[in-house]
Amino acid sequence: MAGNAGSRARRATLQDVATEAGLSVTTVSRALAGYSDVATHTRVRVQDTAQRLGYRPSLRARNLAMGQAATNRCAVMSFGVSPSGLATSVFGPILSGVLAGAAVEGMDIHLAPIDKRVPTDDLARFVAEDRADGVLLLTSMALRPEDIAPLHAAGIPYVLVNRHFDHVPDAPPVNCVTSDWVEGTRDAVRRLHRLGHRRLAALFPRIPSFTSTALDHEHGWRLGLTECGIDPVDAPILQPASRVGDVATGYELGMRLLTQGLPETGERPTAIVGYNDHFADGILRAARELSIAVPRQLSVIGFDNSIGQHLWPPLCSYDPHLFAAGEQAALLLASLLHADHDGDPQRITLPLDYICRETCAPAPHES
Amino acid sequence: MAGNAGSRARRATLQDVATEAGLSVTTVSRALAGYSDVATHTRVRVQDTAQRLGYRPSLRARNLAMGQAATNRCAVMSFGVSPSGLATSVFGPILSGVLAGAAVEGMDIHLAPIDKRVPTDDLARFVAEDRADGVLLLTSMALRPEDIAPLHAAGIPYVLVNRHFDHVPDAPPVNCVTSDWVEGTRDAVRRLHRLGHRRLAALFPRIPSFTSTALDHEHGWRLGLTECGIDPVDAPILQPASRVGDVATGYELGMRLLTQGLPETGERPTAIVGYNDHFADGILRAARELSIAVPRQLSVIGFDNSIGQHLWPPLCSYDPHLFAAGEQAALLLASLLHADHDGDPQRITLPLDYICRETCAPAPHES
Repeated sequence: MAGNAGSRARRATLQDVATEAGLSVTTVSRALAGYSDVATHTRVRVQDTAQRLGYRPSLRARNLAMGQAATNRCAVMSFGVSPSGLATSVFGPILSGVLAGAAVEGMDIHLAPIDKRVPTDDLARFVAEDRADGVLLLTSMALRPEDIAPLHAAGIPYVLVNRHFDHVPDAPPVNCVTSDWVEGTRDAVRRLHRLGHRRLAALFPRIPSFTSTALDHEHGWRLGLTECGIDPVDAPILQPASRVGDVATGYELGMRLLTQGLPETGERPTAIVGYNDHFADGILRAARELSIAVPRQLSVIGFDNSIGQHLWPPLCSYDPHLFAAGEQAALLLASLLHADHDGDPQRITLPLDYICRETCAPAPHES
Repeated sequence: MAGNAGSRARRATLQDVATEAGLSVTTVSRALAGYSDVATHTRVRVQDTAQRLGYRPSLRARNLAMGQAATNRCAVMSFGVSPSGLATSVFGPILSGVLAGAAVEGMDIHLAPIDKRVPTDDLARFVAEDRADGVLLLTSMALRPEDIAPLHAAGIPYVLVNRHFDHVPDAPPVNCVTSDWVEGTRDAVRRLHRLGHRRLAALFPRIPSFTSTALDHEHGWRLGLTECGIDPVDAPILQPASRVGDVATGYELGMRLLTQGLPETGERPTAIVGYNDHFADGILRAARELSIAVPRQLSVIGFDNSIGQHLWPPLCSYDPHLFAAGEQAALLLASLLHADHDGDPQRITLPLDYICRETCAPAPHES
């Protein structure tokens, strides 16, 4: 399911060499850079593969060979993300991945948090001051094509991380790396249906309509219901007023669902899916307080796989591979700076993996 | 307990104005910068306070007034920290705080992870290439004064975050911001002693002898034992071979302690203190598996207050305020770049706060 949407010929990347050789990107990079901790037979395999695929060495190596400065300046611009959110929420793994990818490609990483909901003016100033050669964009907010017009107009290469414009009519194609929230959420519905659950609820926060992640979750949920023949009345999406996916909100909504039942039928759901692990934590707390046994009486599934392993019971969650998303975004930006491909923008989509722990079980028998 | 160790006169900082005016640093900064979302009476109060304390505006404002580039280049150099660790471990909150402080002072943040245990060569190259005006140093490793000699020799302002050289004989004084691990650990011993615990154990990872955090923990533990009159045989420090403070290691050591007892006496401890919340998570898992009730039969305390709130039972932990440490480090570096103080280096120590949750209780009666 992963991979580039674009199918036209393009220059081989480090990732291609790694996939072909069956090795990690890091190992391939170290092998090509001549690090001594890579075994000789591995190095030979990497070099053969690189040659066969027509891979050209990295920006860093090329720049060094040409006597230029060793690095390109890559700015990670975030907006709608507080400084504390940038390193501690889901952006932590993304940022980590960006650093890993940038290190492989020899890019300098400059953090430029924008303290505004709409970044347009700051982007224009950033462009005018020639502050970066390429930009990675991170946000927790809705993002519209016009928000980033200054980058587009200036022709500065940029990559959206965890955002796309697929839902925007007539949006120009852009380079972006996202996790496959649609398929992940659809898989959650199918999984619960297979386990016999017929009364479900999704707790997804209310997010402005241009937030692609939220739209993808909702889309996937509806696809799953249709596929399984579940009436949306028996499997509603509940949206807290709060935009924040935190434990307290998950607790509050979970408590309401478990005491009052589904909004239209009043029946208690046998499974609840949270927008993230923090929501799911709140649901587990509500269930514990009400002495509802998880997973015997209630199944709970989270997304993001952030704190799921530390919860009790350990949470079943979907891992969106945000570290890999950040890494891929940095590698894609590097390839744009190389001018490795001058064709259509690329849309890279990473599949989610279901992490099976202890909060999901067959539906309880009707009492 | 917090504050600057240096007591000589120095220029008023933004923090001073904020403290004096009873406002947050962010509000003060925005008021002085003329943001329209600050109420007029607040702005007047801030301006009066700033004038009274002789505060001079920030680097950014001064540079802009002088027609210079708007920012100073601050490099966050990390070593012994993998890219994934930089944003997802305890370094996440530190990095977040650095970003918050840098935003207030208008500093550019450049991330420069060094892929080596000893950073000296990379620092020398960094200095030679004039890559930054000031440096914040982050590491999970031991740090010796000679490791950072290139910075010292070049006269580039730098601040250590969560490291100090107090334990190194004849070390030159350096600018650093640390949490008060000594007092925090000492407080944990006293707290458990007050609750009647007489058989304790500390799980602190084995760390090279120049890692100030580990030395501080051990020092605090011994101070606490002496103060409470506890024989170290009844309250040993146990050190896993692993340097990593992870859940699996905590589980393994916890399991051994709870089944075999303290190494010298064979008696089961009634309280265990973990080096961090992840160790404590492992201890809680071992106790649960052995049907040892927490906190009725066993008290558990963690450090870092990272995942403690998500564990079951919710973990008692000491919060080292790492976000504030990062923020203070950025502000201190900015003041060095202002040449606000040209006197002795500053050592800022932040107190730890005990976060009381549900894993700590009076010692069980002897059976």
